[in-house]
Amino acid sequence: MAAGLPGVRLGLSTVRWLQSQSSSHLAVIAGGFPVMPGIISGLASRKQIRLIHVAGDRSDPAHGTVQRLPFATISQQDLEFFKQLLPGRTITDPDLLESCNTDWIKSVKGSSEVLLRPQSTQEVSQILRYCNERRLAVNPQGGNTGLVGGSVPVFDEIILSTALMNRVLSFDHVSGILTCQAGCVLENLSNYLEERGFIMPLDLGSKGSCHIGGNVATNAGGLRLLRYGSLRNTVLGLEAVLADGKVLNCLVALRKDNTGYDLKQLFIGSEGTLGVITAISILCPHKPNAVNVAFLGCSSFQQLLETFQCCRGMLGEILSAFEFLDASSMKLLEKYLKLVNPITESPFYIVIETAGSNAAHDEEKLHSFLETAMSSSLVTDGTVATEESKIKALWAMRERIPEALRHDGYNYKYDISLPVEKIYQLVTDMREHLGDRAKNVIGYGHIGDGNVHLNVTSPTKDPALLAAIEPFVYEWTARFRGSISAEHGLGLKKKNYIHFSKPPEAVAIMGNIKSMLDPRGILNPYKTLPDCLR
Amino acid sequence: MAAGLPGVRLGLSTVRWLQSQSSSHLAVIAGGFPVMPGIISGLASRKQIRLIHVAGDRSDPAHGTVQRLPFATISQQDLEFFKQLLPGRTITDPDLLESCNTDWIKSVKGSSEVLLRPQSTQEVSQILRYCNERRLAVNPQGGNTGLVGGSVPVFDEIILSTALMNRVLSFDHVSGILTCQAGCVLENLSNYLEERGFIMPLDLGSKGSCHIGGNVATNAGGLRLLRYGSLRNTVLGLEAVLADGKVLNCLVALRKDNTGYDLKQLFIGSEGTLGVITAISILCPHKPNAVNVAFLGCSSFQQLLETFQCCRGMLGEILSAFEFLDASSMKLLEKYLKLVNPITESPFYIVIETAGSNAAHDEEKLHSFLETAMSSSLVTDGTVATEESKIKALWAMRERIPEALRHDGYNYKYDISLPVEKIYQLVTDMREHLGDRAKNVIGYGHIGDGNVHLNVTSPTKDPALLAAIEPFVYEWTARFRGSISAEHGLGLKKKNYIHFSKPPEAVAIMGNIKSMLDPRGILNPYKTLPDCLR
Repeated sequence: MAAGLPGVRLGLSTVRWLQSQSSSHLAVIAGGFPVMPGIISGLASRKQIRLIHVAGDRSDPAHGTVQRLPFATISQQDLEFFKQLLPGRTITDPDLLESCNTDWIKSVKGSSEVLLRPQSTQEVSQILRYCNERRLAVNPQGGNTGLVGGSVPVFDEIILSTALMNRVLSFDHVSGILTCQAGCVLENLSNYLEERGFIMPLDLGSKGSCHIGGNVATNAGGLRLLRYGSLRNTVLGLEAVLADGKVLNCLVALRKDNTGYDLKQLFIGSEGTLGVITAISILCPHKPNAVNVAFLGCSSFQQLLETFQCCRGMLGEILSAFEFLDASSMKLLEKYLKLVNPITESPFYIVIETAGSNAAHDEEKLHSFLETAMSSSLVTDGTVATEESKIKALWAMRERIPEALRHDGYNYKYDISLPVEKIYQLVTDMREHLGDRAKNVIGYGHIGDGNVHLNVTSPTKDPALLAAIEPFVYEWTARFRGSISAEHGLGLKKKNYIHFSKPPEAVAIMGNIKSMLDPRGILNPYKTLPDCLR
Repeated sequence: MAAGLPGVRLGLSTVRWLQSQSSSHLAVIAGGFPVMPGIISGLASRKQIRLIHVAGDRSDPAHGTVQRLPFATISQQDLEFFKQLLPGRTITDPDLLESCNTDWIKSVKGSSEVLLRPQSTQEVSQILRYCNERRLAVNPQGGNTGLVGGSVPVFDEIILSTALMNRVLSFDHVSGILTCQAGCVLENLSNYLEERGFIMPLDLGSKGSCHIGGNVATNAGGLRLLRYGSLRNTVLGLEAVLADGKVLNCLVALRKDNTGYDLKQLFIGSEGTLGVITAISILCPHKPNAVNVAFLGCSSFQQLLETFQCCRGMLGEILSAFEFLDASSMKLLEKYLKLVNPITESPFYIVIETAGSNAAHDEEKLHSFLETAMSSSLVTDGTVATEESKIKALWAMRERIPEALRHDGYNYKYDISLPVEKIYQLVTDMREHLGDRAKNVIGYGHIGDGNVHLNVTSPTKDPALLAAIEPFVYEWTARFRGSISAEHGLGLKKKNYIHFSKPPEAVAIMGNIKSMLDPRGILNPYKTLPDCLR
C-alpha cells in the first residue's frame, strides 16, 4: 500500500452497517451445548432457541459490526495494473464510487475505493487471476438492486461491475434461446425480445436497473415464476469466471443436457460467492397474443385462498400471475404515491394476470371465472384491464409497494416462503406481536408461489424494534418449515439465519463447496454463508 | 472373505460387458500434445480428434474391459450384519439377483451377489455407514430401466434397491406438492394423483417400472418436459443419504427457497454417484380437463419444423407434447408389433398432444391449427383422438418404438440434444456414413426439446459397426455444440465421452465434488465420471 494514495484508506476494520443487526449467529442450546438448529423440526419448543454471538465477534460484543478478514489492501501497483488492463474503466473517483458502495434501499454501505468495469469475460478472468494471487477481495456487482446487502462491499472489496458487459450474443427465433452477457439490463432484454415476438421468462419490479447476471446470481423469482418456472429451469447455459481466473464455459444453448453434474446450478443463487457469472443462455417463451389483468377485492384471506383455488381451476394454463396486497399496503400507495384504489376498499386485493394465444378464449375463461367468483361472494369487487396503459396502472398497485414503503420510514424487510395457507398468519401474528412498536406492518407478495413480503416500518432505525422482530420472524417461519428467504437470497443481512431453513449437514457442504471453488475466499466475502463456517 | 460362502465369488477383475466399447477416453491431439477437447468449438477440423486409451487401461489394451477398483469384497461377517439389519430383505439367491444384475436392454451385466432392500432412510443410512467404513462398493438401483448401464453393478457392488421404499408421505391438494419415498413407481404416483385431480409433471415410456428416485437421480426428461419443464424446476425438495451414512434432509415442500446453494441440484442427474436419494417432494400440475392427440404426416423434415413453428404459435399454452418418428421407425412398429399406421405413409410422423382446462377452446385451437397446416401443405395427412383408448393407440406409435427396436436385433442407442433444425441431419448423415453395415438407422424423439433418439440396429453385436458409429456420432454432435446425452445420462457406457459436451474445467470440478461427497468412492463406482479422473 503506497502512502498518500488519494482515496484509499487503510486499516478498515469494522463496517458502517446502516441497519444494525441484533445478532449474527444462532444456535440452539440443548443440554447446555450449542448445537446448530437445522430445520428446527426436532425442537420440543421454540424456547430452546437462544442467540449467541459469532465466533469472530466474541471480542467485540457490540451488535452491528463484522470483522474484516485479512485480505490485502489495494496498493498503487495494483491500481497501475488495473488501469493498464482497463484504461478509463478503473474508477477511483469517490463521488462515482458512492452509489456503488450503497445498496438501493440505503441499508448497508461499504468503503470500496476502486470500481472496475470490464467489457469481456477475458478481462474478468484477468482481474480475478490477479486479485486471487494478491488476495484482494472482490465484490461482483450487477444492477445493485438487491435487498439483503449482497451487492455492495462490506469493507474495501474491489467492486467488479458487469455494467459494460451488456451485449446480446445471439438469439435463436426457432428455439427462443437468448444468449447474452451478464450485464444486460432485464428491461432492455425484454424490449429486445418483444420486438421479436418473445418475452423474458422473468419479470421484476426492478427490471429497469437489474442485470440478468445478477438475476441469475440471486436466482431471482418475480412475477412470472408461477407460469414459466424458476431460473433453474429456464437458464440453459452459463459462463462463469472462477476465483482463480479460470473460465468455466457451460454456455450451451440446449433444452436438455445430462452429461455429468449440472454445475451451472451451483452458480445460480450463489450471490457471486462461487464465481462471477459473465454470460448466460436462457429459454424465452413466445410473447402471448392476449394479456388481461384483473384487480379484485376480498373480505378475508380465507376467501382470497379460495379465489386462488377457483382461479387455478378455471383459468388453468392461461394464468400467469396471482399476486396480493393487504389493506395496509393500499393505504401506503394512496398516501405516498397518490395512487387511486380502482375498486371499493377491501381487507385484501388480488392482481390476476392471464396470458394466452387466443384473446377470445382468454376473455371467455376470465369472465366465466369472475362470474363464479362474484356470484359465490369470494370476491367483493373488481375491475379488468385489457389495454396496455390500464394494465400498467393495475400492476403499479402491486409493483410500486416497495417505493411507497420507502416513504414510510425505515424498512425492515422479510421475504418468506410458507405453505400458502399460512402466509398471511405471519403478518397478523407479527402485527399483534409488535403492537405499537411498529409504525406499519404490511404484507404483499406472490400467492401462487407461497411467498409473502413482510415489511415493518418505523420512523427511524430502531434497534429495539429489530430485536422484537428477529428472531421472532425466523422462528415463526421455521416452525412451519418455511424459508427465511424465498427469493431475495441471504447476502450480508440474512446469512447468519441460514440455519432456520437449512440443516447443519447442508450448511457444512456449502462451506466445502465454497472452499473448493474459492480457496482464498476472495469472492464476495462476508455474504451468503454464516460466519460460523469461517 | 469367508471361504466357501455360497454365491460369493472372489477375485473379479473384469466385467462381462455385453456391449463392447470401442474406446474409453477421448483426447484431442493438438500440436502433438493430448488436450481435453472441451466443447470442441476451437477445433480447426474434426480430424484433430483421435482416440487414446484410458490411463488405467493402458496395461490392457483390449476394448470392453474395466479394471475393478480395490474395494473390499463382501465377507460372511458383512452378510451377517446386513441380515440382522434387514431380516428377509438381504437377498443372496442367484436367481433373484440375475435380473438386478442385468439392465433391461440386456447390454451390460454385473456380478453382484447381494441385494439389499431397505424400507427406510434410516436403514439406507446404516447400510452406507457400514459400507463406507468397510469400503464396500454400492450400486443404488431404482426400477432398473436406464439405458446407459448406470443402474446395474459393473463388478460385485452391493445392490441397494429402493423397491420397498414406496410410500407416499404427503400430498397437499392446495399447492399440488407431493412428498414420497424414492422407490415409488412413476405410474403408481400418476394414478394416485389422477384420483386427486393432479398429474405428475413427467411421463416416460418406462413409467410402469421406473422409480421416482431413479427419475430424479438421472434427471429424466420424457414426454411432458416441453410443457412442465425439467425436474430441476419441479423437484422442490430432496432427501439423500451421503456415502458416509449422513442424512441430508433438504426435503422442503416450498416453491421458492433461496437460502444458500441449492444442494439438491447436485443430486438431480448425478446417477447415484453422490448420494442415495431416499425421498423427494415434487410440484404436480392440475389434471387437464381436456386432452387431444393428433397424429400427422409430413413429407420432409423441413415441413415438420415449419409445422412445429406454426403449432407453437397457434396452440400456444395448451401444447403439451410435440414428438416425431421417421418412416423407418414406423416400419419397425408395423413389422414387429403389428401396429397399423393410422394415416397414409409419410417420410415423417408427428404426435401432438394438447392439454387444457376448456375442451371447447382446445378443440377450436387444434382444428384451426390443423386447417392451417393442411391448407398450407405443411402436413399431408392426419387423424385426431379425444377419447382415451384412441389417444393411447396413437401414443403407442411413439412410445413403443424402443420395444420394436429390440425385436430388430442388437441396438446401438444414442440420445442427442442439438439445435432443433439439425436433429434429423444426424440421422441422415449416420445412415449415409454406415451404408450397408447397419441393418436399420432410425430417428425419433422430442422435437420440442431438440432431442433425437438415434438408434442403429444390427443382427448381432458388431464391434466393427460400433467402431463406425463411435466416435463419429459424438464428433458430429460436438461440431454443432450438442449434448451427447440429452436425457439418458452417462452411466457406464457414455462416461468417457463427457469431454464431447463438457469442457475440462467442468469435468475437473465434477471430480472434486465427487471426492468431497464420497471420498472413498463407494457410490456407484465406474459411472458418470470419466476414467481419467480416477
